[in-house]
Amino acid sequence: MRQDRILNIPAIRRMPTYLHKLLKMQADGKIRVSSTELAEYMNIELIVVRKDISLTGISGQRRVGYDVNELIRYIKNYLGWNTPIEAVLIGAGSLGTALLGYNDFEHYGFCISHVFDSSPEKIGKNIYGRTVRDISEMPECFRDNPPEIAVICVSNTAAQEVADKLVSLGIKYIWNFANVSLQVPPHVVVQREVIAGGLAMLSVKRKQDQEVFNQFQ
Amino acid sequence: MRQDRILNIPAIRRMPTYLHKLLKMQADGKIRVSSTELAEYMNIELIVVRKDISLTGISGQRRVGYDVNELIRYIKNYLGWNTPIEAVLIGAGSLGTALLGYNDFEHYGFCISHVFDSSPEKIGKNIYGRTVRDISEMPECFRDNPPEIAVICVSNTAAQEVADKLVSLGIKYIWNFANVSLQVPPHVVVQREVIAGGLAMLSVKRKQDQEVFNQFQ
Repeated sequence: MRQDRILNIPAIRRMPTYLHKLLKMQADGKIRVSSTELAEYMNIELIVVRKDISLTGISGQRRVGYDVNELIRYIKNYLGWNTPIEAVLIGAGSLGTALLGYNDFEHYGFCISHVFDSSPEKIGKNIYGRTVRDISEMPECFRDNPPEIAVICVSNTAAQEVADKLVSLGIKYIWNFANVSLQVPPHVVVQREVIAGGLAMLSVKRKQDQEVFNQFQ
Repeated sequence: MRQDRILNIPAIRRMPTYLHKLLKMQADGKIRVSSTELAEYMNIELIVVRKDISLTGISGQRRVGYDVNELIRYIKNYLGWNTPIEAVLIGAGSLGTALLGYNDFEHYGFCISHVFDSSPEKIGKNIYGRTVRDISEMPECFRDNPPEIAVICVSNTAAQEVADKLVSLGIKYIWNFANVSLQVPPHVVVQREVIAGGLAMLSVKRKQDQEVFNQFQ
């Protein structure tokens, strides 16, 4: 197993949400932001916001808050989003299409530059400006310069084969939306995205409500 | 702000992945599972698996592992998935379509029974067995018996209006995929799903790799 430094997973998962808010503030011409404003927006405790933000290394100033532009820079730097990242998407079904249409990615410097699929109905289609290409063309396309990240949006049964192909082409980071545990060499990093994870969160909160309700019956 | 008991967010988010694996084992006729097997599948440390599972209240037995059926029951009970949950989906675009096609939901007892949209091209369409209905019919449809959970997959600009409508119909749990912070009354629980959260995780691991690489330059 790959040994990572211990990560504050919930804090990292929140970073894009801070960034989304801050980029909107920047577009609206706002100069400064307080942790209180961010806590209200995120609907979490003030102390959690402060801890999250301190991860980026920025020094907060009491009372005056953070400089919006500076905080954006620190968050982007923390995530490695200060320089553009190129990615390939495999699987142009409904989920893949949704990801191609996700507007924020471009603000994060995350660019899905190539889309491949194996289905004849999808090959040749234009989705949000990208043309879906035949997956059999992928090796030739990436012979010299593979993108850093691959996003897997194929069926569970096809995912391992796709992952093997990606690894053989030199891709090191895989964002996997298929519901399978991919087997990859130790130098490859897989981030498995389990959509139902959010449903589990909501369900536990619902369960807590029910327990409180039952206590008062 | 709603005061929740402190939740182990990463553990809760992992529960559906355990469940997915265990349900597959159950279907394959496996009777017992060890924490080691689960740790390998999840690609996390053994101690983390043990902690995660202990949250469900099951008592593990050293050397013999867990009874697969029993562990499924405990996880489902922990999440409140032991009885079916009905949900409505608002927004039948590509992301909504992907959720309707997510096979595991039915094994979790999560049933998206109604789908609404406002777009004439989508109304009347059949998606994985559900007919998309006009959102203007929603109040009448849910007058007597609103589902417990609503899934919002509409555009960022439409999300707050949809949320207001859902709250007025008595829906208490909202799984929000729009990239906005919804304003709701205190008794309503919103789980905001930020797709880019997983990308942030992958990006931080990539950043760590780069730092290690740079150290040895």
